Amino acid sequence: MRIAVYQGPSPAGAMAAGWATLDRALGAAGAAGADVLVLPELFLPGYNHPGQDDIALSVVDWHALLTPLVRAAGCALVLGLPERDGDTLFNSALAIGPGGDLLACHRKVQLYGPRERALFTPGAGFADFMLAGCRVGLMICYDVEFAPHVAALAARGVEVVLVPTANMVPFAHVPHHTVPAMAANNGLAIAYANWCGAEGELTYTGGSLIAGPHGEVLAQAGAGQVLLIADLPARDPARLSTLSTDFRML
Amino acid sequence: MRIAVYQGPSPAGAMAAGWATLDRALGAAGAAGADVLVLPELFLPGYNHPGQDDIALSVVDWHALLTPLVRAAGCALVLGLPERDGDTLFNSALAIGPGGDLLACHRKVQLYGPRERALFTPGAGFADFMLAGCRVGLMICYDVEFAPHVAALAARGVEVVLVPTANMVPFAHVPHHTVPAMAANNGLAIAYANWCGAEGELTYTGGSLIAGPHGEVLAQAGAGQVLLIADLPARDPARLSTLSTDFRML
Repeated sequence: MRIAVYQGPSPAGAMAAGWATLDRALGAAGAAGADVLVLPELFLPGYNHPGQDDIALSVVDWHALLTPLVRAAGCALVLGLPERDGDTLFNSALAIGPGGDLLACHRKVQLYGPRERALFTPGAGFADFMLAGCRVGLMICYDVEFAPHVAALAARGVEVVLVPTANMVPFAHVPHHTVPAMAANNGLAIAYANWCGAEGELTYTGGSLIAGPHGEVLAQAGAGQVLLIADLPARDPARLSTLSTDFRML
Repeated sequence: MRIAVYQGPSPAGAMAAGWATLDRALGAAGAAGADVLVLPELFLPGYNHPGQDDIALSVVDWHALLTPLVRAAGCALVLGLPERDGDTLFNSALAIGPGGDLLACHRKVQLYGPRERALFTPGAGFADFMLAGCRVGLMICYDVEFAPHVAALAARGVEVVLVPTANMVPFAHVPHHTVPAMAANNGLAIAYANWCGAEGELTYTGGSLIAGPHGEVLAQAGAGQVLLIADLPARDPARLSTLSTDFRML
């Protein structure tokens, strides 16, 4: 499976610029033969931009808006968006297949900090689906820092977890240590698509990465705008972690 | 708290050389004002050397042998040793205070691989004690890769975990990713003292490190012999992980 990860500055409410960035990144990923492009958390209107509730749409509406871009690129898309379900808002990630089919919508389980908790309702579980012959799971940002959640996806046979995120200073340990460790400890690949630059009072850490199933960093961004594209290696059964089977209860 | 970590090649059964290395490292750590020196797993006779059962001693006997060296250096000592209790062998870590007092003996809970499991009986819990004003926990190697065990020590107020280890190729993700991630996710420092070089069919990864409570790598070894000495920074309450309180059951 070939994975593309886009890292860039937030459109910060500039919706046309956000759509143009999405379209360009998707076109480039498709041209490079990527099976899927992963974009950051709350890609529109931007993670830390006000007006999440104003632009929030239903899954059906987001799907309808995004399908033409995805079909034109021929590359699956995973991105974060504010989702409305009646009066309830979710911090969600949509996965749309290369033919335009809706693969999954994941609602963030581990909402981070008072602002998210005031705006959004937490999700109740984690989605998985098949793409390019792999079982794929979705998480959003803080979700992937919790070992039991990642272990639960691994137990369901998930081979790669795609993670839109908005990871800010001072939490640089997450892309540089936590994500590779979660990959190695659970024997699955993780693609983690972060913002860079500043947005309001937040400065994002960048450091977006694609980690293989043994914790190997296949590609990692610095602090600026970048598109990462990498092929997931085959898993070596002899190297897979046995943490879940070895765990001793005390 | 000032921590020293020694990384070197295994004495591989050369007991006099092992004792001389221990004495030199302890003297250097004491001269540098370290509060404690941490040495690798099964420091005598060497992790992957046969004859663990021949040289295994009781805690009382190891304590008696080590006390003069520790008192002369005025520096606490944590190291891995094969421990005998009647007919039972444990893969243990002893902690001896700067005045020669026995602070703790931890028996490895998560035995790694068929050889360890054939030789040793697993321990039943994790020790903690006070040293230089800090609450200190002990783990051995594979123990520290299990998030629930590290979280249990954090819940008891442990501020720093000292870890004799024998981490081999291809598991370089452990010193480079897992240990800093466990530190950050649990808001505690971790000192991880590994071997370097080859011993029998194993090649050790080196990469011994001292990680601060926010996952910051204060010092990290390369692939050769080294003594790391670093002061633990104060914890910033605003930066401490909230993973344990935030975790959402599904």
